[in-house]
Amino acid sequence: MPTPPTTVFTATSYGVGARFSLHPMTDGFADLILTALRETDSRGLQISTDEVSTFLRGPEDDLLAYLADTIGAVARTGVHTAAHVLFSRGCPGEVECTVADGTAQAPAALTRPAPAHVQAAAHWALYPLEDSPTADHMAAIYAAIEHARDLGVLTGSEHYVTRLDGDLADVLYAVTDGWREVGTQVRHVASHLSLSLNSPTTTHSPAAGAR
Amino acid sequence: MPTPPTTVFTATSYGVGARFSLHPMTDGFADLILTALRETDSRGLQISTDEVSTFLRGPEDDLLAYLADTIGAVARTGVHTAAHVLFSRGCPGEVECTVADGTAQAPAALTRPAPAHVQAAAHWALYPLEDSPTADHMAAIYAAIEHARDLGVLTGSEHYVTRLDGDLADVLYAVTDGWREVGTQVRHVASHLSLSLNSPTTTHSPAAGAR
Repeated sequence: MPTPPTTVFTATSYGVGARFSLHPMTDGFADLILTALRETDSRGLQISTDEVSTFLRGPEDDLLAYLADTIGAVARTGVHTAAHVLFSRGCPGEVECTVADGTAQAPAALTRPAPAHVQAAAHWALYPLEDSPTADHMAAIYAAIEHARDLGVLTGSEHYVTRLDGDLADVLYAVTDGWREVGTQVRHVASHLSLSLNSPTTTHSPAAGAR
Repeated sequence: MPTPPTTVFTATSYGVGARFSLHPMTDGFADLILTALRETDSRGLQISTDEVSTFLRGPEDDLLAYLADTIGAVARTGVHTAAHVLFSRGCPGEVECTVADGTAQAPAALTRPAPAHVQAAAHWALYPLEDSPTADHMAAIYAAIEHARDLGVLTGSEHYVTRLDGDLADVLYAVTDGWREVGTQVRHVASHLSLSLNSPTTTHSPAAGAR
């Protein structure tokens, strides 16, 4: 059969999704997490959890909104909370892909979510993992960084990560949209985000970082 | 000046290091973290912390031992604890490298640490980020996975990650050594590890994964 010139992939066939974990640092962590999950609109996402993290599969806009809602709900209680997110696209498994080499597909832009009304400090890493020979992944990375700068959340470069600070929803928007942007050039793109919310200590206190 | 045929890099010049965060999910999180940090031998590592994570720079064996000691000390209190580790080598910054393209260097093997006497459930992602044309990064990844299997900690493949279960020290050894192994073929290698310790729930409970 002839292959159409452009194949349109779904979130499932293209492997678009995320894993996240949420850590309110309080004796009452279980109730906080359960309440946030119960009260958040799941937006049709495929959601499954295990002992380590929660897997989400679905379109980029829905992933972004769901993460802002769940993490925001826990953080707005005021409890010191950490959250970690892994975004991935273009490669459903960790060592195998069913999407053809060189295929890169991503939406043109994402919808900026409403403010979460909680400040986040974050470390962001963005990994373009598989290029076609013509891909310009550095241009896409620079575009992602400029987008974060335009949003006002880009606050520094650290070893291995970019530092972001701002409203939780803006930080998540910058990261999710940057991952999408690199996805316009590169098939398999992973991105990792570590978030700290309501930290009791300021930056550069010796104890703070180990949370 | 002529360049010697083999340049020997240090942990600093080659950018060998890690970032980690430690989340005991209890009201007394600060004391637990401070005590673990105070009582752990720093092994000469460069250590600096900020609001989001702690940066470590030094040789692979020392990184592995320090992570096993600090995370183990908190987990052995019995408190439900999450920890996240990012390993990186071969690229000091997030978008720039001072190490030449195609240079790949790593030690031959790491020392297996003593058991931590606490069980860990983990998700592991391993990213070879920059190849020379002759690099065989898939062979190195398969060797890393076989090493984890030989240690008895490889328990499954999930979306985007490999599942590991076992003594915390063995899980950290499998991941650190796998990152090192891929580093024999590929200059810039990143790896991310999410750990869950003393989880109050079993796998596949809806609430458990969001921790």
